[in-house]
Amino acid sequence: MPSVSRKGKAMPESPIRKLVPYAEKAKKEGKRIYHLNIGQPDIKTPIEALNAVKNNTIDVLAYSHSAGFESFSEKLSGYYAKHDITIAADDILVTTGGSEALIFTMGSITDPGDEIIVPEPFYANYYSFSTQSNIKVVPVVSSIENDFALPEISEFEKLITEKTKAILICNPGNPTGYLYSKNEIKELTKLAIKYDLFLISDEVYREFVYDGSEHYSILQEKELDDHAIVIDSVSKRYSMCGARIGCMVSKNPSVIATAMKFAQARLSPPTYAQIASEAALEAPDSYYKETVEKYKQRRDLLIAELKNIPHLRVSIPRGAFYCIAELPIKNADHFCQWLLSEFDINNETVMLAPASGFYSSADQGKNQVRIAYVLNRRDLKKATQILKEALELYTTKIELQFAFEN
Amino acid sequence: MPSVSRKGKAMPESPIRKLVPYAEKAKKEGKRIYHLNIGQPDIKTPIEALNAVKNNTIDVLAYSHSAGFESFSEKLSGYYAKHDITIAADDILVTTGGSEALIFTMGSITDPGDEIIVPEPFYANYYSFSTQSNIKVVPVVSSIENDFALPEISEFEKLITEKTKAILICNPGNPTGYLYSKNEIKELTKLAIKYDLFLISDEVYREFVYDGSEHYSILQEKELDDHAIVIDSVSKRYSMCGARIGCMVSKNPSVIATAMKFAQARLSPPTYAQIASEAALEAPDSYYKETVEKYKQRRDLLIAELKNIPHLRVSIPRGAFYCIAELPIKNADHFCQWLLSEFDINNETVMLAPASGFYSSADQGKNQVRIAYVLNRRDLKKATQILKEALELYTTKIELQFAFEN
Repeated sequence: MPSVSRKGKAMPESPIRKLVPYAEKAKKEGKRIYHLNIGQPDIKTPIEALNAVKNNTIDVLAYSHSAGFESFSEKLSGYYAKHDITIAADDILVTTGGSEALIFTMGSITDPGDEIIVPEPFYANYYSFSTQSNIKVVPVVSSIENDFALPEISEFEKLITEKTKAILICNPGNPTGYLYSKNEIKELTKLAIKYDLFLISDEVYREFVYDGSEHYSILQEKELDDHAIVIDSVSKRYSMCGARIGCMVSKNPSVIATAMKFAQARLSPPTYAQIASEAALEAPDSYYKETVEKYKQRRDLLIAELKNIPHLRVSIPRGAFYCIAELPIKNADHFCQWLLSEFDINNETVMLAPASGFYSSADQGKNQVRIAYVLNRRDLKKATQILKEALELYTTKIELQFAFEN
Repeated sequence: MPSVSRKGKAMPESPIRKLVPYAEKAKKEGKRIYHLNIGQPDIKTPIEALNAVKNNTIDVLAYSHSAGFESFSEKLSGYYAKHDITIAADDILVTTGGSEALIFTMGSITDPGDEIIVPEPFYANYYSFSTQSNIKVVPVVSSIENDFALPEISEFEKLITEKTKAILICNPGNPTGYLYSKNEIKELTKLAIKYDLFLISDEVYREFVYDGSEHYSILQEKELDDHAIVIDSVSKRYSMCGARIGCMVSKNPSVIATAMKFAQARLSPPTYAQIASEAALEAPDSYYKETVEKYKQRRDLLIAELKNIPHLRVSIPRGAFYCIAELPIKNADHFCQWLLSEFDINNETVMLAPASGFYSSADQGKNQVRIAYVLNRRDLKKATQILKEALELYTTKIELQFAFEN
């Protein structure tokens, strides 16, 4: 039998999705699961987007331009202008989700064996896409003690080699919820210029910032025009994860021209989803405001509830809708699986994402989980109560037994 | 300024799309262009698919399962059964177009530097996806003299090295229209088993076969279960190129499990497009029959008209909706560009795909073009008449001048 590739073997399973079979089994057994594992919002998609698709008049569902609808790129340019970001339609390549924007970016700027430096914990699929692209993720550890702030620039400099092509950040961060300050972005800008590196910033959670903070984009740094590549997506902004529409933005024309060749190869982004995404831009400002307010309230509730759990440590997220919690246990992978397959309270349990998959350092994050606060407050409260009771049982009865058996 | 990757530089421009800027300019100048360059059918998408999207009741456009809707895979299993192909839903991974099925396949079975053998001329993007995957396309030349039949098996054997991981065919073929016989598939089966290779078959044109021929799938070869990987797509079958839905099919569980990790990384295929694609399977048999009959008539007309053009040679396509024509010129790239930028008859011209991009051998196909017969017969007739007159002018006046200047 012919064998799969070394790369295929090395591809990680998604830490967010690998427990899905356990969850499916639990559901078939009649358990209700509170999903804190996945960033799938329950917020309604803007009615403008939904109606545009319902009212479409297509009779031949044709390819679009490989770079996406021109009208959509032009409206995106207007969207960025509202965020004080000056971007021409030509600087934008519409992609099949932020995922494809990352794949095109890595393909356009790296060759096998090249390295990118990424503050960890990081969005787990950065590691998957790097493996797919045969490049190496070099982690620079940010710490829960320090609320996951940008590590010292000297820590980055130590890691730069002749193979380093880029630094990749997520701002605000998935899974940490950390929001980089303007000053931190300026530090990274200096570093990228000094070492002639690309600076890639995943800004799909741009709007999701709390406590009166403002998001500062790498695209606002004029000096960085040749270096900056932004990854964007409609998935979270408009609760349209299933659209699979994102974009790659850069003022470096070689980068966009190169990515365009990858885009031509896969022909075009999905047409219906582009119709929805273009229409979503017509959503009123109140849509964003209400959504962000809702997440802020959920965050406040979640953090308050988590702080009630003994020996649990959590860093307060300033953006996005995730946080990393450190649990009073040794092996979060085992705990999360146990929650699905062996635990319930009145037939209810919670699903969490073990944080180990968000680190590439082997010894990091073993006792941490990522929590997505994408449920309404009643469910969030219920989920944290279940988590609290689960931890009590697990730490007093289960963990020792598991350690003994292994 | 940081530089793009070697891979990015090596990525070819699409031979089908690279002339688009010339076409756009011509259109802006008021020219009408007959598009023979791209396999974008004018056939209506099944009403079942269009209505399913119009009548959708989604209010949160959520991710789907990474492997696609389970209900869709189950219906696909039924679709294959109608074609005498026994495939379980679990053997199917729903992808974002046949394009993504190819990318996942290459990622799952090859590492950088590995080789795949492909009869050429081949679908141009096989070369793009191979470049993107850092693998080498090893062409085995099929010839217009021989109607692009499968080259002798000894020609394949000569090319097999320890780096060879797979043979990739397109059946029926884009760009040749060649339909492999059952006997040819059996020859390839023996070869794949003898050398323990994967056999990848792109069967997106399965239904488009003419003259009473029958399509024979590699999935019908029982012995090939561990070796066979089929690439499929709804794009052409249902005139739904803009959906971006395809699938990867294999009875080798390691292949599907490995591809699933790539699928998890990109989260899910587009939701609206899956709704359309699942509903398209409800289209009545008459939809396929009428579509195929239409293409057959177009093919007959096209071939008859092309045979009226002096010194033009064409191989009669037995499937798909393309043919390769050899023109009485030296440089089809220049000719195709000239058609758009300098030629017209009463403000009308034609767009063709230069065939050089469908070969990886540097010296092949220079005087060939790929013609897609996706226009109605009146337009096809007009387009071939324009082509005939263009060739007269080009061969008597333009070509010599171009050769002199270069």
